[in-house]
Amino acid sequence: MPHQESSEDTLLRKIRQNFAQALTPASRPIRLGIGDDAAIFVPLPGQQTILTCDWFLEGVHFLRNKHSADSIGWKCLARALSDVAAMGGTPRCFLLSLALPPTHTGPWLTDFLRGLQRASSRFACQLAGGDTTRQTQILINVTVVGEIAPRRAVLRSGAQPGDIIYVSGTLGEAELGLRRLRSSRRLPARKDRALLKHLYPEPRLALGRWLAEKRLATAMMDLSDGLSSDLPRLCSSSGVGARVDATKLPAVPLGSEERARGLTPLSLALHGGDDYELLFTVPPRKTKFLRFSMQGLPLTPIGEVTRDLGITLICAGGLEKPLPAAGWDPFRRSNQSK
Amino acid sequence: MPHQESSEDTLLRKIRQNFAQALTPASRPIRLGIGDDAAIFVPLPGQQTILTCDWFLEGVHFLRNKHSADSIGWKCLARALSDVAAMGGTPRCFLLSLALPPTHTGPWLTDFLRGLQRASSRFACQLAGGDTTRQTQILINVTVVGEIAPRRAVLRSGAQPGDIIYVSGTLGEAELGLRRLRSSRRLPARKDRALLKHLYPEPRLALGRWLAEKRLATAMMDLSDGLSSDLPRLCSSSGVGARVDATKLPAVPLGSEERARGLTPLSLALHGGDDYELLFTVPPRKTKFLRFSMQGLPLTPIGEVTRDLGITLICAGGLEKPLPAAGWDPFRRSNQSK
Repeated sequence: MPHQESSEDTLLRKIRQNFAQALTPASRPIRLGIGDDAAIFVPLPGQQTILTCDWFLEGVHFLRNKHSADSIGWKCLARALSDVAAMGGTPRCFLLSLALPPTHTGPWLTDFLRGLQRASSRFACQLAGGDTTRQTQILINVTVVGEIAPRRAVLRSGAQPGDIIYVSGTLGEAELGLRRLRSSRRLPARKDRALLKHLYPEPRLALGRWLAEKRLATAMMDLSDGLSSDLPRLCSSSGVGARVDATKLPAVPLGSEERARGLTPLSLALHGGDDYELLFTVPPRKTKFLRFSMQGLPLTPIGEVTRDLGITLICAGGLEKPLPAAGWDPFRRSNQSK
Repeated sequence: MPHQESSEDTLLRKIRQNFAQALTPASRPIRLGIGDDAAIFVPLPGQQTILTCDWFLEGVHFLRNKHSADSIGWKCLARALSDVAAMGGTPRCFLLSLALPPTHTGPWLTDFLRGLQRASSRFACQLAGGDTTRQTQILINVTVVGEIAPRRAVLRSGAQPGDIIYVSGTLGEAELGLRRLRSSRRLPARKDRALLKHLYPEPRLALGRWLAEKRLATAMMDLSDGLSSDLPRLCSSSGVGARVDATKLPAVPLGSEERARGLTPLSLALHGGDDYELLFTVPPRKTKFLRFSMQGLPLTPIGEVTRDLGITLICAGGLEKPLPAAGWDPFRRSNQSK
């Protein structure tokens, strides 16, 4: 009599089936996937390995009744990939740790795996393994493994006084999408750009790789918690400060109703989280190599690195003031942005 | 004015400080640790990379009021290392994902990091990075990165009919320790062997590596959910069955009070979880190379691999019966062992 499969094993089989045909064999760096004690990854000769992991938790990072399982599947991988983009690396594979209520192992899991599998294919990052268990809340943790040539990784610590500070894309857009999602009784229009950016962020992998390969960026990180929280981290790592021109921030256009509710494009651009754009610094002599956009993605100079510590915001009219960190920090009790 | 550090950054600094002096520089495979977007690991030339991750969750895997922070810190890493042992690999570094209530970022975190740091030093596995956030429950996920030479990893899928089935150590001991911990009002004696095994398990890294290097084991896995759940997984991966001799199982001695409560050494050995011993199969012609113990750790032949599928238990007196899976499965509602 064949042994009866446990319910955890059934769950693993479902995950494995969803990912069986994800990549062509030639592109697979994984020798052994789900179903053994561990996965085996074969590094490319001479490459260094990038490692990063990211929580994605119900009630902290998403809401069960507001966020679709499909978008949760996409986003849990996309945001971890953004950390690989921020180093200038190429993603190779990922591990999925999933804790689910027993009510969520049917259609919810199917939708979740579909979103995850789309992101996995799109960014050529193969599922290597993971761990599953039961919990009352939906808990997700994703570890991404990437690769980069030695001495090519762009760290947070390389910014020099005089470097020009750039951001990709539009800032505050994902935060606006989140606010629209939370304030709506029904789901907002699916084509809403801000909503799409909140639900299906795009890690800036091509941009990060290009900046690293061409040695254009001296420092880089991704904007996950908002410019006002993340820029101080980059500056602190580099032992520098920054001056940011508020009028130059690539902010998001707002509807009149949203302005009436007190939202401003500036506050969203400064403090909005979840954009997963790249923040990077470029020596002035190299800025001529930066086009205004890369494959349709705007690249905007927003200020410069200073020897003086602290972050100064230059407002319209020339008024200067220190920039307070008001982005996303899970341990700060009153949080402006989430 | 230097920018004020966020509370998440303060937490990261505390973790970094605890791990600053953990390993000698020469043994460090990590080029870039905590504090950037991702960590960079430098693989040894020609080695393959082992990847594994493990949940360790309050209410599922440990209880806040029963398990000390120090043991939680040790065990969350030790149990993930056990998966590397089960492949025959050598651990190199790990990522720590930690979600904590704000009440647990003081003394609790200090104790947790002390236990974690001891396991990290003991098993030469360096902290590479991680992710922290806030949650009402204590949530832990650990990813371990290990290495192994090509074609040396021992998989679950290599067992052949006729191979002898071995286990290391004593089975059911950790489960007994858990039961003692749960039934006691105050903490049981610190020197209780079963309790120590439950709180501070030892991944069998040296044994796993030796079996892989000498090519003695045809299949291997670690016993985390109990023999009755894990042996069918090994058999299923290998397309074989097994006959297990109940009288040969290295079971744990019980007190008379525990026997009176209905516990038996056999049920603990079959269904008890959390032992993190190795289960492995050896061709008969190679069993002569297996000593009865390795560095004080008993190695016990408990049965043999069969062509017929299914797991048969041979009881005292020769009675044969199918072995039902009754070990730890988080998705099974009534769970005998936890």
